[in-house]
Amino acid sequence: MSPTITAFEQSPDRGRGLARDMRVRWALEEVGQPYNVRLLSFAAMREPAHLALHPFGQIPTYEEDDLALFESGSIVLHIAQRHGGLLPAGANARARAITWMFAALNTVEPPIVDLQIARIMEGDQPWYEQRLPLVQARLHKRLGELSGCLGHADWLDGAFSAGDLLMVSVLLRAKAAGILSEHPKLAAYVARGEARPAYKRAFDAQLAVFTAASAR
Amino acid sequence: MSPTITAFEQSPDRGRGLARDMRVRWALEEVGQPYNVRLLSFAAMREPAHLALHPFGQIPTYEEDDLALFESGSIVLHIAQRHGGLLPAGANARARAITWMFAALNTVEPPIVDLQIARIMEGDQPWYEQRLPLVQARLHKRLGELSGCLGHADWLDGAFSAGDLLMVSVLLRAKAAGILSEHPKLAAYVARGEARPAYKRAFDAQLAVFTAASAR
Repeated sequence: MSPTITAFEQSPDRGRGLARDMRVRWALEEVGQPYNVRLLSFAAMREPAHLALHPFGQIPTYEEDDLALFESGSIVLHIAQRHGGLLPAGANARARAITWMFAALNTVEPPIVDLQIARIMEGDQPWYEQRLPLVQARLHKRLGELSGCLGHADWLDGAFSAGDLLMVSVLLRAKAAGILSEHPKLAAYVARGEARPAYKRAFDAQLAVFTAASAR
Repeated sequence: MSPTITAFEQSPDRGRGLARDMRVRWALEEVGQPYNVRLLSFAAMREPAHLALHPFGQIPTYEEDDLALFESGSIVLHIAQRHGGLLPAGANARARAITWMFAALNTVEPPIVDLQIARIMEGDQPWYEQRLPLVQARLHKRLGELSGCLGHADWLDGAFSAGDLLMVSVLLRAKAAGILSEHPKLAAYVARGEARPAYKRAFDAQLAVFTAASAR
């Protein structure tokens, strides 16, 4: 049985591939695992049937036989552990790749989400303009550190891994916010991720959902 | 060889156990693995020797033979995978426990850190008082969802796991910020974590570092 993931029936990013189902789609495409998608309206995401799968009422979830998971990081790790291609074979290199998965989600993504929260949820507040430079400065500091660590390498630690998959996914949100141009090495890193055939297949699949929903 | 972790020479939380080395100490105590601690000043954390271990110049790091890791989530997962006691034996239960690790760090911790950032880094800004209720509301919504999911269970999914270890660690920051009293089930959950002998040993060890530094 192919696994089933959940995704937005109509993505709030208008098909730009920034919703978190994209990370799971990309991982499944990298390892060549077919999957099913169950689309959810915003109303359905707050219903008991979905909250039983995802306590925070979000997407994606992942169902496979009698296993049900949430959290994109955990789902990507599960896929990477069950299939070859997303984690190195050696135990130490594997632990380092998993370290980059956590770094993407716990160290790099939060200041990016903070910028999104400022713009989307506080954009009409009187403090917005004055506070924005502080939020941007915290994010640029973090991105500068990441850029210094990447240097001139193609990927964060050897071959492309689930760590890169999550880091590129997280940075795509910074790119969409227009702030990656100040970090050319990271912009090139993200472009390398977007150029991967598996990324393109995943992107096209999520875009097709949005296009179909918009045409109705 | 016992692993070596890094921690603050003088913790900014004044020994309250909220720094991220505490999570790693706790995990090591749960599995009964002795460890060494290398203490770092704030200046040393920005030096090349440390940045080679931790690209974001933070603590903790974890060194064991020729393996070097950063990110507390990754280190706790590494410890949990190498030793018994922090992850269930069954593959599905194991994947669910790891899901809670990611949920703690990527879904529950960010709004808690946002409150800390608001208070510590923006407490003197003109918008602070006006903005605080928005930050608190976002956090209480998330904590309410978590509380509903925990219900009357002792731990998030069966026996105590690395997922509970990270979730309790994250919630201790919310407790320190005085906002856990509105969520009695979560307050009791945190108290169960704090009552574990391994937690107490880890807490005492980090407190002894702060006490010794203060006495100098």
